Amino acid sequence: MTDYNAPLTDIRFLLNEVAGLPEIARLPGCEEATPDLVDAVLEEAGKFAAGVLAPLNAVGDRESCRLEDGKVVTPPGWTEAYKQFAEGGWVGLGLSPDYGGQGLPKCVATPVWEMWFSANTAFTMLPQLNTGESEAILLAASDELKATYLEKLVTGEWGGTMNLTEPQAGSDLAAIRTRAEPQADGSYRISGQKIFISYGEHEITPNIRHLVLARLPDAPPGVKGISMFLVPKFLVNADGSLGAKNDLRCVGLEHKLGIHGSPTCAMSFGDNDGAIGYLVGQANRGLEYMFIMMNEARFGVGVQGIGIGERAYQQALAFAKERVQGRDAVSGAAGQPIIGHPDVKRMLLTMRARIMAMRALALTAAGWFDLARHAPDRAAADKARRYVDLLMPVVKGWCTETCQQICYDAIQVHGGMGFVEETGIAQHYRDARIITIYEGTTGIQANDLIGRKVLRENGATLRELITEMRGVAAELSATGNLRSLGQRLEEDILALERALDWILANGRERLGAVLAGAVPFLHLLGTVCGSWQMGRVALAATRPARADAWDAGYLRDLVELARFHAHALGVQAPALAAAIVGAGETANAFALEL
Amino acid sequence: MTDYNAPLTDIRFLLNEVAGLPEIARLPGCEEATPDLVDAVLEEAGKFAAGVLAPLNAVGDRESCRLEDGKVVTPPGWTEAYKQFAEGGWVGLGLSPDYGGQGLPKCVATPVWEMWFSANTAFTMLPQLNTGESEAILLAASDELKATYLEKLVTGEWGGTMNLTEPQAGSDLAAIRTRAEPQADGSYRISGQKIFISYGEHEITPNIRHLVLARLPDAPPGVKGISMFLVPKFLVNADGSLGAKNDLRCVGLEHKLGIHGSPTCAMSFGDNDGAIGYLVGQANRGLEYMFIMMNEARFGVGVQGIGIGERAYQQALAFAKERVQGRDAVSGAAGQPIIGHPDVKRMLLTMRARIMAMRALALTAAGWFDLARHAPDRAAADKARRYVDLLMPVVKGWCTETCQQICYDAIQVHGGMGFVEETGIAQHYRDARIITIYEGTTGIQANDLIGRKVLRENGATLRELITEMRGVAAELSATGNLRSLGQRLEEDILALERALDWILANGRERLGAVLAGAVPFLHLLGTVCGSWQMGRVALAATRPARADAWDAGYLRDLVELARFHAHALGVQAPALAAAIVGAGETANAFALEL
Repeated sequence: MTDYNAPLTDIRFLLNEVAGLPEIARLPGCEEATPDLVDAVLEEAGKFAAGVLAPLNAVGDRESCRLEDGKVVTPPGWTEAYKQFAEGGWVGLGLSPDYGGQGLPKCVATPVWEMWFSANTAFTMLPQLNTGESEAILLAASDELKATYLEKLVTGEWGGTMNLTEPQAGSDLAAIRTRAEPQADGSYRISGQKIFISYGEHEITPNIRHLVLARLPDAPPGVKGISMFLVPKFLVNADGSLGAKNDLRCVGLEHKLGIHGSPTCAMSFGDNDGAIGYLVGQANRGLEYMFIMMNEARFGVGVQGIGIGERAYQQALAFAKERVQGRDAVSGAAGQPIIGHPDVKRMLLTMRARIMAMRALALTAAGWFDLARHAPDRAAADKARRYVDLLMPVVKGWCTETCQQICYDAIQVHGGMGFVEETGIAQHYRDARIITIYEGTTGIQANDLIGRKVLRENGATLRELITEMRGVAAELSATGNLRSLGQRLEEDILALERALDWILANGRERLGAVLAGAVPFLHLLGTVCGSWQMGRVALAATRPARADAWDAGYLRDLVELARFHAHALGVQAPALAAAIVGAGETANAFALEL
Repeated sequence: MTDYNAPLTDIRFLLNEVAGLPEIARLPGCEEATPDLVDAVLEEAGKFAAGVLAPLNAVGDRESCRLEDGKVVTPPGWTEAYKQFAEGGWVGLGLSPDYGGQGLPKCVATPVWEMWFSANTAFTMLPQLNTGESEAILLAASDELKATYLEKLVTGEWGGTMNLTEPQAGSDLAAIRTRAEPQADGSYRISGQKIFISYGEHEITPNIRHLVLARLPDAPPGVKGISMFLVPKFLVNADGSLGAKNDLRCVGLEHKLGIHGSPTCAMSFGDNDGAIGYLVGQANRGLEYMFIMMNEARFGVGVQGIGIGERAYQQALAFAKERVQGRDAVSGAAGQPIIGHPDVKRMLLTMRARIMAMRALALTAAGWFDLARHAPDRAAADKARRYVDLLMPVVKGWCTETCQQICYDAIQVHGGMGFVEETGIAQHYRDARIITIYEGTTGIQANDLIGRKVLRENGATLRELITEMRGVAAELSATGNLRSLGQRLEEDILALERALDWILANGRERLGAVLAGAVPFLHLLGTVCGSWQMGRVALAATRPARADAWDAGYLRDLVELARFHAHALGVQAPALAAAIVGAGETANAFALEL
């Protein structure tokens, strides 16, 4: 098993030279993010990830979780690691200081979360739930609920869950059946079955706060009749101490392909008198609150893709440097580590190029979150919010899909050893397989992109983004050794425009055909965003703002990595555009019987 | 769990209208393959696959194999199923009638093996070993060895194995260390450790015949000093009865990502006095005998890709027809099965198009095997042999890689249920992951393609094949409703030629850069072969030889499937060509440190 090493140089370069951390740190409310503090945070996080969480990753996979007498037993080491994690203040790193968080900008918190996901995704899903839910409660809940629950969530003293899915209601939350009966005291009695509830039950924290989507008796049908309830595992007394156990329990654990260390619970609410719950915000607005969190939550899953990909890449790289096999294809020399074989090198470079492109996009997007929230210039804040809205399905969909390919190649580099579980590389492949599914499948992301983000505003924000991309292409084309990157990016942007034009022209009359190309369009936009970001990386590496901070060889490699990305991966753009324009109608017209 | 249904209509259509079975059945030695017999064989195989082998597939995954006191316990049902399989005459279906085989043409045996792989790949690896090894023994072994072992292998009475890999010798067999000491009686004493030996030990058959690669004491170093030995688990007495246990044993089983039902053994030979073995053919020519089998063996693994892909597709299709979720994106109607969602339909169509393209190529290639062996016209036989040699790395590499994408989409169609092991779809994804690795990784296939198959003859056979493809493109372009397929195919062929020209121009001076594009080139050739074959399918469906044999709707769907393949998948060709030409040099120049 390879040790994990936090990719601090890459993260620092991207933060400082590409994602605009120096500007963000000057925004009101972000002043704490000084270079020294950010460096210290990244350094400490890297140590904790490598030293505490990474060694537990294989343990969680092997030992899994068990349901015993209604209690969920998590893998050995989980509880102790979580205690340290919470005490280190990591849960609330990017959350409000008013409730015990550290209040660091999202662009600083994001690479830290990437490290946690690299080190141990199954573990990290627990504190990740706290962050998403804290946002929802902060935004929507009454002062009373905030007073009782919020700080304990931000500090990680209590765990949190999201109870959305039911057997008949997966992607389609309109089909939710869980009921909430109003009580005389203003509380509600919740009853129903929920499935796929991550960390729905465990003993890691003394209490768990469930957010549950359910229907009131008089609720309208469909998504407009869903309300959100806060349902604690243990009721909380007026003095903040824990009271009686609520009427809810875990009735089963899923046996899954991966993330074995994360208990995926089937939950039963209200087997007896109904679980006591409290309405969050207003009745029938539950889905709206969910969607407010969604940009954040989906962004987090995209970052999982980067994190798992980085871990798989590191392990494949280490193996390729050690494993001696075959002769040098050109010189014929024996005794070479396999990294010297051109195809192995191609796979490793592809992995690294993909990770850097994804990370550059995610950190840039994290900066937009910060700008949207903190920029005093209203126009700048609005633009950042538009970009966040447009690209969140891409960060989620493209980064999670790309992660699969990285994990796939990581196994391939290992040859036969990659198929043997003891090697550990297969775990990443298995763990990663859920991330294109949960928090909305890639198909859901792509429909969101086409429907809500592109068609609804007739492509306005995407056109704005394309203008920005084109500026980078022009800058590349005007820079001696980067000219071919600029030409390539311009070609890929043209492909994106061809697809966009076709989608806008056909979105009304032939929506089925357009949606049959939705996922290819998500891949297309992700690919071009990746090339755009790698173009920015190449420009930054050619003319870094802090030239003395970086090794010259490192900068040179970044330029070559961008070149490889453009010519090995960017070239996919015209093919994707051709598939969108050419195959949608045929696909849509096909009979359902196949 | 979905029942498996043998895709008999697709197989019959491809055999009769595309792969040339009617012509092959007229070749001397193939006359038994009458339409009635072939139909009966396919029908019976489909029943056996669906009824006996398919239900055991999940059992093998769940129960796995165990090593107990040196004995390997295979999953419940394995021994009984194998007994039926052997008694049915299925092991020797395509093997020589001189030794108990059925002697059917390879193009008839191939779809039958596809069904076995669909039904239960882990199980089928056992009889598959018999077929490969029978070929080697038939070709290279002494009459005495043939007399003792061959018929029992062809009928399946005894099992067989291939003992190639050692811990330091995976893809690189030059590094083999297992020793063979000559004895006075003409036999040898074998000692050494082998790993990754499929079915290296089991109780399913009363004896197991191991083919072992080892070195004689005076052998030259490297691949020219490897000999092949036949080493039985139990020695065989002069009367054919079983004698003493040989000095070999299974010392461990691998814990693998997939194919749990197939025991992957670490074998120790000669812990005591040395295992008694017999030289196959001549000393130091072991690797040569291995490579004679290789076209066959690699072809078989390519067919595994089709088989596993078909099973995953069937299961995803059945789920998509049953699962109700969400509203129709165009009409807004509720209660629709998810197959109506454009993205789900796109995934299912992509799977089906990929499977048909692979199957058309594999059956056409199987026909070339038959022509090479049986065609009285020497030129026709030679051409078929050239095509087999050229395309075997493509059938192996491209079909196995494409299978991964099918299994990936099959999980995606299932949404969250795809990640739950009980659903069964994840097994195919796990099982499939080995097939791009064993019998030579995709990288090995691609190097073989570029080095031995293209550069060595300056692209001659590939140019010949391209001329053939171009004929199909012209025919498509001249056929009213298929014109766009012809244009697309012509464009994709041009991309293939661009890549080929670049490879031939740079193969000497910049071999490293060329080999960095070897796998993309394999994908490119596979993609264009797929489009070529689907073009042939579209032509055949438009003007079938036996028009009355096929339902008109079925023929229409085949044309539309070919159209979808061209515009959704064929379009990848130019992107792959661009990556080969544009990225190889950058990849090759990159420092090893990455």
